[in-house]
Amino acid sequence: MTTSPPSSARSLASFVHGQWIHGQGGTEVLDAVYGAPLARVSSDGIDFAQVLRYGRETGCRHLSRTTFHDRARMLRALASYLLERKEAFYQLSFHTGTTRRDGWVDIEGGIGALFSYSSIARRELPNERFLLEGEVEQLSKGGSFVGRHVLVPREGVALHINAYNFPVWGMLEKFAPNFIAGVPAIVKPATQTAYLTEAVVRAITESGLLPEGALQLICGGTGDLFDHLEEQDLVTFTGSAATASCLKVHPNIVARSIPFNTEADSLNCIVLGESVRPHDPEFDLFVREVAGEMTSKAGQKCTAIRRVIVPRSVTGEVVEALRTRLSGVTLGDPSREDVRMGPLVSAHQRNETRKVVEALCGEAELVVGGEVPELRGGDWEKGGFMAPTVLLCERPLTANAPHELEAFGPVVTLMPYEGEQEASALARRGRGSLVASIVTYDRTEARSLFFGLASAHGRVLMLNRDNAGESTGHGSPLPQLKHGGPGRAGGGEELGGLRSVKHYLQRTALQADPTTLMALTGEYVRGAQVSEDAVHPFRKHFEQLQVGDSLLTHRRTVTETDLVNFANVSGDTFYAHTDEIAARDSIFGRRVAHGYFLVSAAAGLFVSPAPGPVLANYGLEHLRFIESVGIGDTIRARLTVKSKTAKDTRPGERPTGVVEWAVDITNQHDQLVATYSILTLVERTQG
Amino acid sequence: MTTSPPSSARSLASFVHGQWIHGQGGTEVLDAVYGAPLARVSSDGIDFAQVLRYGRETGCRHLSRTTFHDRARMLRALASYLLERKEAFYQLSFHTGTTRRDGWVDIEGGIGALFSYSSIARRELPNERFLLEGEVEQLSKGGSFVGRHVLVPREGVALHINAYNFPVWGMLEKFAPNFIAGVPAIVKPATQTAYLTEAVVRAITESGLLPEGALQLICGGTGDLFDHLEEQDLVTFTGSAATASCLKVHPNIVARSIPFNTEADSLNCIVLGESVRPHDPEFDLFVREVAGEMTSKAGQKCTAIRRVIVPRSVTGEVVEALRTRLSGVTLGDPSREDVRMGPLVSAHQRNETRKVVEALCGEAELVVGGEVPELRGGDWEKGGFMAPTVLLCERPLTANAPHELEAFGPVVTLMPYEGEQEASALARRGRGSLVASIVTYDRTEARSLFFGLASAHGRVLMLNRDNAGESTGHGSPLPQLKHGGPGRAGGGEELGGLRSVKHYLQRTALQADPTTLMALTGEYVRGAQVSEDAVHPFRKHFEQLQVGDSLLTHRRTVTETDLVNFANVSGDTFYAHTDEIAARDSIFGRRVAHGYFLVSAAAGLFVSPAPGPVLANYGLEHLRFIESVGIGDTIRARLTVKSKTAKDTRPGERPTGVVEWAVDITNQHDQLVATYSILTLVERTQG
Repeated sequence: MTTSPPSSARSLASFVHGQWIHGQGGTEVLDAVYGAPLARVSSDGIDFAQVLRYGRETGCRHLSRTTFHDRARMLRALASYLLERKEAFYQLSFHTGTTRRDGWVDIEGGIGALFSYSSIARRELPNERFLLEGEVEQLSKGGSFVGRHVLVPREGVALHINAYNFPVWGMLEKFAPNFIAGVPAIVKPATQTAYLTEAVVRAITESGLLPEGALQLICGGTGDLFDHLEEQDLVTFTGSAATASCLKVHPNIVARSIPFNTEADSLNCIVLGESVRPHDPEFDLFVREVAGEMTSKAGQKCTAIRRVIVPRSVTGEVVEALRTRLSGVTLGDPSREDVRMGPLVSAHQRNETRKVVEALCGEAELVVGGEVPELRGGDWEKGGFMAPTVLLCERPLTANAPHELEAFGPVVTLMPYEGEQEASALARRGRGSLVASIVTYDRTEARSLFFGLASAHGRVLMLNRDNAGESTGHGSPLPQLKHGGPGRAGGGEELGGLRSVKHYLQRTALQADPTTLMALTGEYVRGAQVSEDAVHPFRKHFEQLQVGDSLLTHRRTVTETDLVNFANVSGDTFYAHTDEIAARDSIFGRRVAHGYFLVSAAAGLFVSPAPGPVLANYGLEHLRFIESVGIGDTIRARLTVKSKTAKDTRPGERPTGVVEWAVDITNQHDQLVATYSILTLVERTQG
Repeated sequence: MTTSPPSSARSLASFVHGQWIHGQGGTEVLDAVYGAPLARVSSDGIDFAQVLRYGRETGCRHLSRTTFHDRARMLRALASYLLERKEAFYQLSFHTGTTRRDGWVDIEGGIGALFSYSSIARRELPNERFLLEGEVEQLSKGGSFVGRHVLVPREGVALHINAYNFPVWGMLEKFAPNFIAGVPAIVKPATQTAYLTEAVVRAITESGLLPEGALQLICGGTGDLFDHLEEQDLVTFTGSAATASCLKVHPNIVARSIPFNTEADSLNCIVLGESVRPHDPEFDLFVREVAGEMTSKAGQKCTAIRRVIVPRSVTGEVVEALRTRLSGVTLGDPSREDVRMGPLVSAHQRNETRKVVEALCGEAELVVGGEVPELRGGDWEKGGFMAPTVLLCERPLTANAPHELEAFGPVVTLMPYEGEQEASALARRGRGSLVASIVTYDRTEARSLFFGLASAHGRVLMLNRDNAGESTGHGSPLPQLKHGGPGRAGGGEELGGLRSVKHYLQRTALQADPTTLMALTGEYVRGAQVSEDAVHPFRKHFEQLQVGDSLLTHRRTVTETDLVNFANVSGDTFYAHTDEIAARDSIFGRRVAHGYFLVSAAAGLFVSPAPGPVLANYGLEHLRFIESVGIGDTIRARLTVKSKTAKDTRPGERPTGVVEWAVDITNQHDQLVATYSILTLVERTQG
């Protein structure tokens, strides 16, 4: 299997307001391996104001009819659909210069982000169109005025401006959270690799799985698009810090306070701890990680290691180990299975990277690389090939270029240090990075290095023998964890689970009386009007139960017998329950009932024993014991529907939903004795 | 008590690198009431690079030695100190044109923000230098690779650029969260009212309560300060959208991705629901709220109501009710008790506001105001006096000026509407506002109005008869709730409890094996190496207990007798525990033990009954029942110290700390049966 140079360049299309539109003329894109013409890219003729209007009107309207869970289901279906078609994407991906392993990160990593956000949304979001954040805030003494943060979808479009190195992942990792949030997207891929993004968007539109207007694609320039952005829109940008600086000061962005999230390449580092000796497993892990980051995607990752911070005493060993390891890296046509590293995305990009290496050589010396290695397919000059290159900067504390200039290719600079403080200072000289790795098995050293550099980094990987087998590596952002760093790295945040979904939601602080707050948010609030009727709430199906439905139980006087019986059945003979003498001196001043007795007795008061729609109590949250209960005290409980979430039903399963109940236990003085929530599984009448 | 015009203007000083420095020459500031010279303000001669360096070096160093709780205690002491000196601030405040009631919001509201953040920090933050956010993320199947978000203080300075209308609150509401976070501040108040800010900072420095370098003050221009900002610094700005647009595109802000949080004046609205009739209590509440917002601080609040959206059918009644209410507003010297509204901050500001009113009159007509009312003290021309002014815009859907031009004074524009959709559309035409109020007692109407306008607003107040008695009103940001709105309002966020503390922290995603994660974060992580010794953990004092200390209990076989006894003592005879026939058809397929029996029996296994350092179990979190337990199953529990937080000790109290324990209950197959955390109060040996 080889990449055959295509005979003629085809014209890429943009997908806007429901149509595929081919631009006139445009930029010619070359294959990264052989330099042959591959595609022409132009957005000429697109009415950008119309694109935005269509997103805001058609896209927002359709999305506003769906809930977080609806969108999660669509995302999962879309992910499966794309996964079945991945081979076509791999074939195109080879033209960008990536090996199959590199392509996996982009293609299956991108599809994986859709799967991840689908599960995050179903697990952590309600089946609603809005999200409640944090607890109810008491804003007044009397309790008639309370507050809550409500997050609603922004009623605009997310414009994603992406980099060339991840044409698939770059689109999907941003699209997943904006889609879950209920905001439509316009994706503008980098021209150089837009043909792969276009192919994925073609598959997405063919699937018919997304609502109309949820995703548009612009291949080519953005024309006057920025002039038409409005206050509810958002922009994300991935690429160079220089381009970010131009775009984010666009007068319209500034005047309308349009959120602009930047992810810029940074001078990420890896630190080898001074405790690590050359024969330790961590030394080898360190060398593998550096070599892997240099050669994966030929070093064209915004997260790739650029600065290698090593104890001065082992610098020689590190150079030799890297030289040995890199000498085994085979270069050539990335579609060949015997090739480990492909070219940079273009000959132009390679030439630019070489220039940076030359500039770095003013303050560092070349110790590995610079030669023309044997190629296994591909064209050394017309393609973007470059050998792995290691520089050594002997005085990194005073040098500037290695901390400022980024060679966006298979290039690192070694920086010797002495002492933890020097290591942290070097790491921080990147002036803000996406990620740093720390390699050591000494956890005291790990701790001081971490806190020494954390404030300048968005992510920190601690690598050692215990996690190396499962570590996802220095360069891989994960959907669960925040991606983005301060300063040089752009100051933005992506991924990180729900955090990135919230970027597309407007946080609104809502102030009201408890009953109004309950009516607006669909969640019971202490102090809100409850409704009580003759039917026990455990006799009602999911659909019949309403938030605020409540049961005030009969009472029970707690007796000495209860304390004794409960101690006997639990085996819990803690002195405060069973030792009259010690209990008098305890913080309670008397024998008191077990806390778990109160919770158990409350269940005894409110449970309806015969089979019914409530199938199980599977959890409990936020239990607090407020007042102690002694012999002779009389308790009762109030059980109120706090919130409801219908669950997805798989074929053959009986349809159910989660009902959360607020439980308050009070004593004969109407004092609150204990408060908590229980989680139950309740049958639905309909699937 | 009257404000006597001061005889001559004094020169304000800046407090930088530990010194009070008087600038040369400078701007002359006039008293708002009589127009007499009050102060000269200049920052000439200040070395701004040194100011920043001092903050970053001395300020950060001193703050880094304290924990969140240390800072919370300092903030509380500072708040008490300032409260004792409030009368001096009130006297100065009268010169800014504010009545005592207005001054209360600024002075005691500001001091209140310090108290609030002190309690928020002690309640919601650990007694540490860093904060853990969210749960531990499982990043691998085998469990050897996990992730957590760690928030550490940014190692820079927070520069606060404030507006003239809240010289005290504006400083303190921003300082409280940056200080709790551990970041030093530089406050630059608006020149017009800097004399009041200066007086408060003098009191703060005299108190000696803050660490060196934690707070600097710049009275006058910022010179070349922005040129010296670095990546770890932050800027907040409160003021006009126009000034914000200039400052946030400073090349240094852009190139270094320095966070720039903007709070801009916006065209906030209030909506009267169509369900409200003129004789309803809500009609009166509405009129009071509008009149109150117009006259409080003479309408000089970024949150003040500018647009009054009323059902067309009751427009006439609203005009009349407002006219009547406003006719009772007395103007004059705000230090007089019979004066309800003072002047704007200056004659200049009043003249500017008048010009905006003239411009508005192109699309609206004047219905109340415009006359020269009787003054009770003060100088109509030299002071900033202006009568409350109501405009009526008959065609607000097509008009532009009332949605765009802000009269920063006692001025509102009435906008009649028909139908909820029109009301929401009008509200949204502000293009992003800090706050909207909705006045109605119909909760269905409340709900649709809220969701109709929420995405364009940072805060929404629902006002009705149930909460009016305790409502803090349309114009008041509260420490617990987010303050800030999208678009025109600047897109920033302030306050909102911990949210604003997090603005000053760097969020770093930490990836490691469980044991390293535990070592770095001080919190037990499932899968980390635990330590077991011969001493039962309940026999150890707070100081002796280490995170990771663990006890694996003996076992207990669950018998039918247990099920029966537990049903008897609890009274919980749910069929799944007690009805052999129904239990067979249940989701469990057999009789199972009560969930609370398992939790109680686990306590029976791990509790050490005799009096000891563990005083009480006061709470439980995140209980999940994973596998059911039937008759004949054998359980055991593992109890592990998850986290520790020392509590503040009041005089006479015995010193204690909170110890959170992770509990895992397993069965004979080592399957997890239940998992939760318990919260205990444990004695400390030292205070």
